[in-house]
Amino acid sequence: MKIALLGGTGDIGKGLALRWARDTDHSIVVGSRDPEKAEEQADRYATTIAEAGADAEITGTGNGEAAAGADVVVLSVPTEYATATVEAIAADLTAGTVLVSPAVSMERTEAGFRYTPPEAGSVAEEIAAAAPEDVPIVGAYQNLAAGMLSDLKDDLAVDVVVTGDDAEAKAVVASLTEEIDGLRALDGGPLAATAAVESLTPLLINLTLNNEAFHDLGVRFR
Amino acid sequence: MKIALLGGTGDIGKGLALRWARDTDHSIVVGSRDPEKAEEQADRYATTIAEAGADAEITGTGNGEAAAGADVVVLSVPTEYATATVEAIAADLTAGTVLVSPAVSMERTEAGFRYTPPEAGSVAEEIAAAAPEDVPIVGAYQNLAAGMLSDLKDDLAVDVVVTGDDAEAKAVVASLTEEIDGLRALDGGPLAATAAVESLTPLLINLTLNNEAFHDLGVRFR
Repeated sequence: MKIALLGGTGDIGKGLALRWARDTDHSIVVGSRDPEKAEEQADRYATTIAEAGADAEITGTGNGEAAAGADVVVLSVPTEYATATVEAIAADLTAGTVLVSPAVSMERTEAGFRYTPPEAGSVAEEIAAAAPEDVPIVGAYQNLAAGMLSDLKDDLAVDVVVTGDDAEAKAVVASLTEEIDGLRALDGGPLAATAAVESLTPLLINLTLNNEAFHDLGVRFR
Repeated sequence: MKIALLGGTGDIGKGLALRWARDTDHSIVVGSRDPEKAEEQADRYATTIAEAGADAEITGTGNGEAAAGADVVVLSVPTEYATATVEAIAADLTAGTVLVSPAVSMERTEAGFRYTPPEAGSVAEEIAAAAPEDVPIVGAYQNLAAGMLSDLKDDLAVDVVVTGDDAEAKAVVASLTEEIDGLRALDGGPLAATAAVESLTPLLINLTLNNEAFHDLGVRFR
């Protein structure tokens, strides 16, 4: 399978790239607005994975080229660029390519972080409105801490809630999720239920701000 | 310490009453609009706890009498009655009595449950606006499943996020929380950050609706 991580040069994109490259045989493509930066980062990731004792098929290129022909495209760009990125790569998406939204809209207030859903109800639904109609949207990975994911020594043991209206697309993402050691995929319902997932992220950040013992925080349901 | 559970005849109030009565030496008072019903339920709880092999100091009475002289009052009434209950018992509250809000405002949609915060920002802040000024409000227990809590064989192993503006009141609630076997208290920040906690509850319910393996769901942060 070809997995493209748009904005894969930092944050959650980096973590997913490293984990999928280390734990699976899928072909990982790091995308960036700057293809040269994507190539450089992909080389660094490959080195990190080699140091972890694993083989990796990982390359870097521009966002559009990364998305072209990908089975799964993860929109791991900063939330404020998510919609514009979808519009920019729309022509490169094949019918049936699964588009994954890990983005969360929030603001920092004096009291801590606060979820600020867009008018569409959630970032995932906003992205669905901007994407071609034959491209299924799946919400996932909003509650993973980038630092935890990028630290290949961390055994994770956390959950990923997957939402979407296309059962097949959800199953693909759930399966890819569980191919990463230490991640468990749970069904969060249809795309219209994604706000309930996105709104957990500010709580995770608030808990790291208010509890010294925590740094990168994940969640496990039981 | 005297702990009053208003609306303690059902749901989360029942679970907290059973757990505190079993695991601590505090005096537990079950409150209800109907004092007779409260007495009957308190007797049943005492029987359940005796069957679990523990001693319990647990009584039942009207909400106002339960609140009078209590160190901690938990507003475990249905969310739509929370504000009216605070107003009804305001005269019974002593300065410094800690008022705990476990309530969440949500609606069921076709897609699942959705958080519907009141204008104040969260139910806890709405309650704070209705309570006497010298009564500190603490948000806690919103993310505990009533069924899990009431099943004394369940070892919980879940987290409780505590929010509030009064550090001492928060510490009292955190400490009472950790006196229940299997609960860990975490600091969620000031009262204005409570929406981030309340909004987790619809996600927990959606996960039980969409994942066969789950019934009563709690959360553990890591």
